[in-house]
Amino acid sequence: MPAESLLRPPLKVVNVGLAGFAADLKARGVAVAEVDWAPPARGDARLAGLVSKLSALEAVDAANREALGRFLKAEPVLVDVRPAGEVLTRLKDRMILHAGPPIGWERMCGPLRGAIQGAIVLEGWAPDLASAEKLAASGGITFEPCHHHDAVGPMTGLITRSMPVMIVENRAFGTRAYCTINEGLGKVMRCGGNDAEVLNRLRWLASTLGPALAGALRLQGGMPLKPVIARGLSMGDEMHQRNVACSSLFIRLLAPWLARAVPDSETLARVCEFIGANDQFFLNVAILISAKFKNQPMIQEKPND
Amino acid sequence: MPAESLLRPPLKVVNVGLAGFAADLKARGVAVAEVDWAPPARGDARLAGLVSKLSALEAVDAANREALGRFLKAEPVLVDVRPAGEVLTRLKDRMILHAGPPIGWERMCGPLRGAIQGAIVLEGWAPDLASAEKLAASGGITFEPCHHHDAVGPMTGLITRSMPVMIVENRAFGTRAYCTINEGLGKVMRCGGNDAEVLNRLRWLASTLGPALAGALRLQGGMPLKPVIARGLSMGDEMHQRNVACSSLFIRLLAPWLARAVPDSETLARVCEFIGANDQFFLNVAILISAKFKNQPMIQEKPND
Repeated sequence: MPAESLLRPPLKVVNVGLAGFAADLKARGVAVAEVDWAPPARGDARLAGLVSKLSALEAVDAANREALGRFLKAEPVLVDVRPAGEVLTRLKDRMILHAGPPIGWERMCGPLRGAIQGAIVLEGWAPDLASAEKLAASGGITFEPCHHHDAVGPMTGLITRSMPVMIVENRAFGTRAYCTINEGLGKVMRCGGNDAEVLNRLRWLASTLGPALAGALRLQGGMPLKPVIARGLSMGDEMHQRNVACSSLFIRLLAPWLARAVPDSETLARVCEFIGANDQFFLNVAILISAKFKNQPMIQEKPND
Repeated sequence: MPAESLLRPPLKVVNVGLAGFAADLKARGVAVAEVDWAPPARGDARLAGLVSKLSALEAVDAANREALGRFLKAEPVLVDVRPAGEVLTRLKDRMILHAGPPIGWERMCGPLRGAIQGAIVLEGWAPDLASAEKLAASGGITFEPCHHHDAVGPMTGLITRSMPVMIVENRAFGTRAYCTINEGLGKVMRCGGNDAEVLNRLRWLASTLGPALAGALRLQGGMPLKPVIARGLSMGDEMHQRNVACSSLFIRLLAPWLARAVPDSETLARVCEFIGANDQFFLNVAILISAKFKNQPMIQEKPND
């Protein structure tokens, strides 16, 4: 067929590759079928050759099966809450753990720097935020990723020695992983907050909430997390931006044990209020599960990347 | 077309009325289209005439708009828990309220009779189930529908004077409605259970759980129910067979106030355990809302009908 008859309306177009061509035609009311295709390895012939070899390796398939199998066989149980310095044995003084891959102060984004300044004041390594910034910038603090320490935190994900961490034991494999307690919504350290409100809340987490949760979980004999997560998923949670069901189920399951573990009524009331006021309370546990129970590099937000 | 060609396979049948004809044909692989039709007023010509007049009345439309408007404007708040005898002023001694329309002992189904025998023993009007049955059959007990007393109960729906009832205040209209506390799943009076386990649980509801809830709700200043129900619906609840989200949100919201209201730790723990163990804890409140806040005859199960 000659070209002029092919291009005579009504056109019917099959677009391969750049979506922009299709978008222009669609905007003009032309029928377009898009083929989702890109050159292997973005057109890098050497890399494409390597990928091709890799995908043929039985060892890779076997490793993937093993990783998925471990994830499915996991029996995560929330067993305790302890100060990070007691359980993360390689978390030294003047060391701060953060989300994402290794990064130096000079490349960190604003929220991560802000959170680090706050954490330095919280730990008493500097008297105020300005001197904390100088300390961090001068190399006086060691930074390491949480996931080098079997730990995980949301957003900036900071962990220092005094912060209480929730301990999840994988009873199928005898491993443990750690996450901080979610601070709630609003002005929080995980988003770079570092003023007195933020630091005082973190002090209360360490002095009151952490020990209360620890006491309740030990009396309970640990909280198996698979049933909580299975039920939460059926109630609309997706374990990241929506944890309202799991957070509600968490307080529902733990309330009797908190009642037994916390003798002072007003303290107990404030503990229940803090947990109950936070639809995202379960977030940290959720990302710990998704990050740590594959025994794979963790999937996590990287605000500093 | 002659009849024999109409009935020659393949048949294509339009069935009007009795579904049984269509079912037989379907079972033989014949294509059947069913028309969902029944004669108006089940064929009663006089009644059909009246219904036809009724549907044309502006007054009926206006009443329906008013009913829906009241339902939408309702501001239900769970404010207190009190013994039924204190708040249902027309609930007399030796009177038992039940679900559904008025009914006498002779027409009651087994579960309702069983529940009534249990309630009589619970109230101390007879020493055992056998003499309770004689008392009920001999006319020694007055039976009235719950909804004649602004009250509602699930299944057999029994209410007697000693039972604690939850009080929901409609702050938009200044009205109040009442429902029992859900007994949990398994062997329960609402399904006809009447042995020592059932009665002892009801005694604990009256002696311990009712006062605990009352104390918490009064400290809280009442629990607005619309936000709970709105959120529960978004989490998959349908307010009858599935109340898992609202039941979880209920304990999440009330736990701090229970902590303040119940000084004894073990009592508090058991109260939290009882509520937390029951995915249907919120059911009674849910049916109260659907039944009472239209100011219309209630929509409710009628096991005795």
